[in-house]
Amino acid sequence: MADLVVIGGDAAGMSAASKAKRVDPSLDIVVFERGEWTSYGACGLPYYVKGEIESLDDLVAVTPEEFREHRDVDVRTETEAVEIDVDASEVAVEGPEGSYRESFDDLLIATGARALEPPVEGLDLDGVHTFQSMDAGRALKRDVERLDGDGVAGVVGGGYVGVELAEAFHARGLDVCLFEMLPHVLAPFGEESARVVEDHLREHDVGLHLDTAVEALEGDGSVERVRTERDEFEVDVVVVGAGVVPNVEIAEQAGVETGETGAIATDEYGETSVDGVYAAGDCAESTHAVTGEVAHVPLALTANRAGRAVGSTVAGEPTETGEIAGTATLKAFDLEVARTGLLEREASEAGFDVASVTVDVGSRAHYYPGGTEIQVTLTGDRDTGRLLGVSMVGREGVAHRVNSVATALHAGVTVEELESMDFAYAPPFSPVWDPVLTAAKVLGGEV
Amino acid sequence: MADLVVIGGDAAGMSAASKAKRVDPSLDIVVFERGEWTSYGACGLPYYVKGEIESLDDLVAVTPEEFREHRDVDVRTETEAVEIDVDASEVAVEGPEGSYRESFDDLLIATGARALEPPVEGLDLDGVHTFQSMDAGRALKRDVERLDGDGVAGVVGGGYVGVELAEAFHARGLDVCLFEMLPHVLAPFGEESARVVEDHLREHDVGLHLDTAVEALEGDGSVERVRTERDEFEVDVVVVGAGVVPNVEIAEQAGVETGETGAIATDEYGETSVDGVYAAGDCAESTHAVTGEVAHVPLALTANRAGRAVGSTVAGEPTETGEIAGTATLKAFDLEVARTGLLEREASEAGFDVASVTVDVGSRAHYYPGGTEIQVTLTGDRDTGRLLGVSMVGREGVAHRVNSVATALHAGVTVEELESMDFAYAPPFSPVWDPVLTAAKVLGGEV
Repeated sequence: MADLVVIGGDAAGMSAASKAKRVDPSLDIVVFERGEWTSYGACGLPYYVKGEIESLDDLVAVTPEEFREHRDVDVRTETEAVEIDVDASEVAVEGPEGSYRESFDDLLIATGARALEPPVEGLDLDGVHTFQSMDAGRALKRDVERLDGDGVAGVVGGGYVGVELAEAFHARGLDVCLFEMLPHVLAPFGEESARVVEDHLREHDVGLHLDTAVEALEGDGSVERVRTERDEFEVDVVVVGAGVVPNVEIAEQAGVETGETGAIATDEYGETSVDGVYAAGDCAESTHAVTGEVAHVPLALTANRAGRAVGSTVAGEPTETGEIAGTATLKAFDLEVARTGLLEREASEAGFDVASVTVDVGSRAHYYPGGTEIQVTLTGDRDTGRLLGVSMVGREGVAHRVNSVATALHAGVTVEELESMDFAYAPPFSPVWDPVLTAAKVLGGEV
Repeated sequence: MADLVVIGGDAAGMSAASKAKRVDPSLDIVVFERGEWTSYGACGLPYYVKGEIESLDDLVAVTPEEFREHRDVDVRTETEAVEIDVDASEVAVEGPEGSYRESFDDLLIATGARALEPPVEGLDLDGVHTFQSMDAGRALKRDVERLDGDGVAGVVGGGYVGVELAEAFHARGLDVCLFEMLPHVLAPFGEESARVVEDHLREHDVGLHLDTAVEALEGDGSVERVRTERDEFEVDVVVVGAGVVPNVEIAEQAGVETGETGAIATDEYGETSVDGVYAAGDCAESTHAVTGEVAHVPLALTANRAGRAVGSTVAGEPTETGEIAGTATLKAFDLEVARTGLLEREASEAGFDVASVTVDVGSRAHYYPGGTEIQVTLTGDRDTGRLLGVSMVGREGVAHRVNSVATALHAGVTVEELESMDFAYAPPFSPVWDPVLTAAKVLGGEV
């Protein structure tokens, strides 16, 4: 019997295994991973497709061999967990060594999420890719390289993956058409930031089709056209980035409860409705620091942190998985985009009497060469003056600046308190009043 | 009688005048500035000397004419306040219109700070510059341009100004010798960061003479040599950056109290020991957010914020000047250096049982091209687990990252709380665990 069985060998699973082993080296830990990779940086796949990263191996932080040899973690790749029996404390698996059952003292479900398949015809055509796994990344890169800079890439969905791949395709010399059914790309970043990104995408010759639902992908064996409600577009390769859905089926079949988000419900230690069964990473819910409500925000740091906490807990050092603030950033061509907390619409939905301001502030002292504008959209609660969130976009100094607001959200400060904080100033790096402070000054007049 | 008289037309003074006027446009406001400039960015002077900024006018945010015409503030330049009579509520001045007295309802002393003249012979030689005012910047640039890339610049003092000017001189094609009497440059940034900067300065051929007191500057009319306790160095121009002293003489003569730091003591609204007399900016004390004690950290944001608060207060909206966290950043050739809070020595002196760790963490995901190492030195209190401060240095992503720690210090969080914060992650901008979080994880094992 293993002390800890982990289903899924990526961020959450391997963080848990590694941490548990560090806390208690005597533990017997078995990890089942259905693919061939462990601890892979799926976030790096767009840059692999772009050609900035040569090999999929480069994305791997720690290989299965390294886990086995240096960390004494029994990783079994290409081995899929097919059933959990919580009464018997056993997992049934299928792999190179056949089908068998492994019993556990504690279990971590770290099955991740998969690309959502939207209700569009033709997803099974050659040249159509969803984009979540290493294998998917490899297949897409192969198709892109085959086009050798001559062709049209269709991107269905203007989320993170869609925008990052638009950049990758453009860098590969392809024409790019991006289809988004909502009025704006990057919904989590709010309309104000999205508009700036959209202008920037157009400047890079990305054909933007907003408010446009894709009805079908068409072709004879291979994809040849994207058909929308209004029009048709010739394409040579298509990527569908319509979001992700948590892989909860094996948990649900075992009677482990999912929450209102559809992901696996856990307590503050990552333990599910079943004693001794934990869940972490993209398959599990988190608690939002601003609302105190459950949320499903499948991102890498959350997975790493929750996995690490579960590893500590099962090894005898109870550790909370921590709250999320909904912090995220991405690169969109030459832009940095970042957000944290609740933006206007989310804050209203959460019941706040929200005030929101948008300001444009220089990224450097007005006289220092090379500065550009950063657009900051800051939200607060009129009732209490509490800071609620931010979205920012600009050519520099955005991705790291957002962390000061994330810190402020975790600490529960007011807009007025944020305004009075002592931020760093030097002419090459910011104006005397940092853009975040300027936004707080302006919002301070509203809340 | 003026409603508000301001002595000093730079950051604190003009922020106060502008804000007071916005809050109550009916106020009569008179500003006395002994120089010809208002609201000048003295922090930009190194880049003016370097040649990246053409004209001193570029450094000016708002000119005296603009203050007079667009903000209805009666700015009187080249007019020096020579005495304050607090009993009569009058200031005696000397200027182009002769000597006269102006009476006030409220008074703001915003006299700033001046370059400290160290006990070194020969400071009066031609070619020797201290570096605080616009005029000093102009004179230095003239001397540097006269050398036309052929000569040796001596820098006495390895603080902000010394390091920034070393970069400027190097860019101008001069050889650079920097003399620092302490064992390391950039004392406020701690030894760990200083060592990285020192290596970097040497890579740029700056001759570093640490632990080396300059005894005299020698020459026949113009400076020709720097004489230290051990040696002599030929130079063509010298800048002395030995720190600043607050301009408190006019306040002291009027009976306004100074504090233990030597700067003018104020309450939380910037009011001095004399009713209706305020002080703000480089001449005034602040309160430190970590220690709760008075401190004198003359920096631009503090001056702007305190001035603005005094402006609100005298116009009828009482506003606290805010606390400082000792946050600072600078560019040193290709490095960004930043700090906030209390580093090891300061924290020990303040009575904390300090733990400090130094970690090197990649600035981007390990597989993303172009990443470099960021060195983070994080301090915390063993007794309470409280976060105390940070110093960081690296080629990118340092100057803005420090603000998340500054925010955490203002909010009084623990090291453990910092570790659990939801920071932004994308491969081009950070590893999954941001360098600040990694430092908090490591320090968490110590506190």
